[in-house]
Amino acid sequence: MEFKFSPLAYVPFVSVENMIKLVNSIGAETFMSELAVAIEEDFKRWELFDKTPRVASHSDVGVIELMPTSDGEMYGFKYVNGHPKNTKEGLQTVTAFGLLADVDSGYPKLLTEMTLLTALRTAAMSALVGRHLAPKGSKTMAMIGNGAQSEFQCLAFKAVCGIENVRLYDIDPAATAKCAANLKSAGVNVVSCKTAEEAMEGAEIITTCTADKQYATILTDNMVGDGVHINAIGGDCPGKTEVAEAVLRRSDIFVEYPPQTRIEGDIQQLPDDYPVTDLWQVMRGEAEGRTHDRQITFFDSVGFAVEDFSALKYVRAKIEGTEFFEHLDMLADPSDPRDLFGMLS
Amino acid sequence: MEFKFSPLAYVPFVSVENMIKLVNSIGAETFMSELAVAIEEDFKRWELFDKTPRVASHSDVGVIELMPTSDGEMYGFKYVNGHPKNTKEGLQTVTAFGLLADVDSGYPKLLTEMTLLTALRTAAMSALVGRHLAPKGSKTMAMIGNGAQSEFQCLAFKAVCGIENVRLYDIDPAATAKCAANLKSAGVNVVSCKTAEEAMEGAEIITTCTADKQYATILTDNMVGDGVHINAIGGDCPGKTEVAEAVLRRSDIFVEYPPQTRIEGDIQQLPDDYPVTDLWQVMRGEAEGRTHDRQITFFDSVGFAVEDFSALKYVRAKIEGTEFFEHLDMLADPSDPRDLFGMLS
Repeated sequence: MEFKFSPLAYVPFVSVENMIKLVNSIGAETFMSELAVAIEEDFKRWELFDKTPRVASHSDVGVIELMPTSDGEMYGFKYVNGHPKNTKEGLQTVTAFGLLADVDSGYPKLLTEMTLLTALRTAAMSALVGRHLAPKGSKTMAMIGNGAQSEFQCLAFKAVCGIENVRLYDIDPAATAKCAANLKSAGVNVVSCKTAEEAMEGAEIITTCTADKQYATILTDNMVGDGVHINAIGGDCPGKTEVAEAVLRRSDIFVEYPPQTRIEGDIQQLPDDYPVTDLWQVMRGEAEGRTHDRQITFFDSVGFAVEDFSALKYVRAKIEGTEFFEHLDMLADPSDPRDLFGMLS
Repeated sequence: MEFKFSPLAYVPFVSVENMIKLVNSIGAETFMSELAVAIEEDFKRWELFDKTPRVASHSDVGVIELMPTSDGEMYGFKYVNGHPKNTKEGLQTVTAFGLLADVDSGYPKLLTEMTLLTALRTAAMSALVGRHLAPKGSKTMAMIGNGAQSEFQCLAFKAVCGIENVRLYDIDPAATAKCAANLKSAGVNVVSCKTAEEAMEGAEIITTCTADKQYATILTDNMVGDGVHINAIGGDCPGKTEVAEAVLRRSDIFVEYPPQTRIEGDIQQLPDDYPVTDLWQVMRGEAEGRTHDRQITFFDSVGFAVEDFSALKYVRAKIEGTEFFEHLDMLADPSDPRDLFGMLS
């Protein structure tokens, strides 16, 4: 690329290739641990964020969403699609990119791939919540659903919560084999299981991350013992749930942002006024997290714009001084701002 | 850039430099004429569009907006900021970029600069509306406000409506001089005027495009004679108007999308139920445009997402087979969609 114009108009761009290099240079576990810290810092500043609801464009086969937010200094948004049928066509179910801009000038300051980054931030958030809510000293996690998110989840819980054992289950044994192979040298004990029940044996933390766009019941009531922490990732849009209502009713439910989770999360099965706890309040010590050993804590994860914002800011800071980005000639910046037309001559 | 991954994941990207090359290869007038046709075709398909309101994030000094829309086949959005104070800092008041995606897969199919493209589409829309509403045989346009949009407006009205004379006025004579110089070889007679009244002498079309973010009155009641068409570009956000209420009340008012224009346009000065006509209905022949010689027609332009959509589709079609784009490695596309993590190794 040739750069004719002022550096003011360059937008740093992190390609997929550069995101891979960035994550590998930091290390995936360190990346997610640091990102968990960044997310927690932002959640503690909760009231500063402009919590615009995401703007969704639905079709018969999927959804395209824009998730904007701002803390008054920076503005960020993520473009993300969800198309379950894509997998059959060799495409990703979810692809994403994100943008960070300066509120004071409105100029973009980062454009980045966000498919990998979303997996990393989702896992960082799950593990952060796990650190607050899971039983102290948890060592074993059941990982139900061994698709694209599963390795990230396992590594984040290892890095942030000290998980030593992961017990994998997927309806497709090939997915479990893939996940187990990817985690071979990760420093966790991996057990591949034949049923969800087997995966849950001895697990203090149960992570569900399945992808069917329909009301599914991955966890039934009799499968779930007392005292566990459930990290429910897959129930994240209207019509898509993973957990039996009875499990929800036995649990204390923690959410990112109630107005969004009531529509998209597993709690869409419950009445609109069903009590839930805001995680930002738990993180600030203003609401109780886990209060006793037999309590089931339930994180109804749907993914919130503030987490993407934290991830964008983290990446923006981390690429500084590295070669893991390019400059994109995306903004017209004539020497005389009133002479836009002059650029054509 | 190195491309390791599947072509499915490449996003065609039109940089500022390539947009300039594309416009020059087509010719600015032809570009805007063709784009006017494309916009009209889309306005005639009005009911197919998902008309989500734009999502605005306001600060003390400006606004950042996302303007999404979809026709069910393609999805598009524009990122645009508005920061009037930027000019003083050598930055653009408005910068923009846009994205077009495939609804069926959710995959982006075009990322492009949209600062230049927005100026082109705004002028194309103005001229298209002028062709429908201005007096037949109009030859002279007053161009009040000679900033970044002015040359585009003049050329579009020349190309689409056959305007032969443009009469320029700006409170800053340097802006008028800049505009006149840029239009020197454009094949229109340019007259630089010392007052707005002088600019309007003999003009059948009056275009106002001033940039103050405040209630301004560029056109007062006694300045506007009967029978003209007013193309009001600059009153395009809450608190920003250009035209005296009395002028509006003497006019028949035409708008892109009433719910948006009532908030952002000059008609924010009028009651919420003040009658206006939808331009898509005029274009389809379902509503009357100009009905008599003494009528003042008034296009309260604010810019609507469908126009950006038309522009994105037009550019996407025009770059096909050219060298005016790059491939951006923006979407993670592992060979096995479930093995996102495998991309890190």
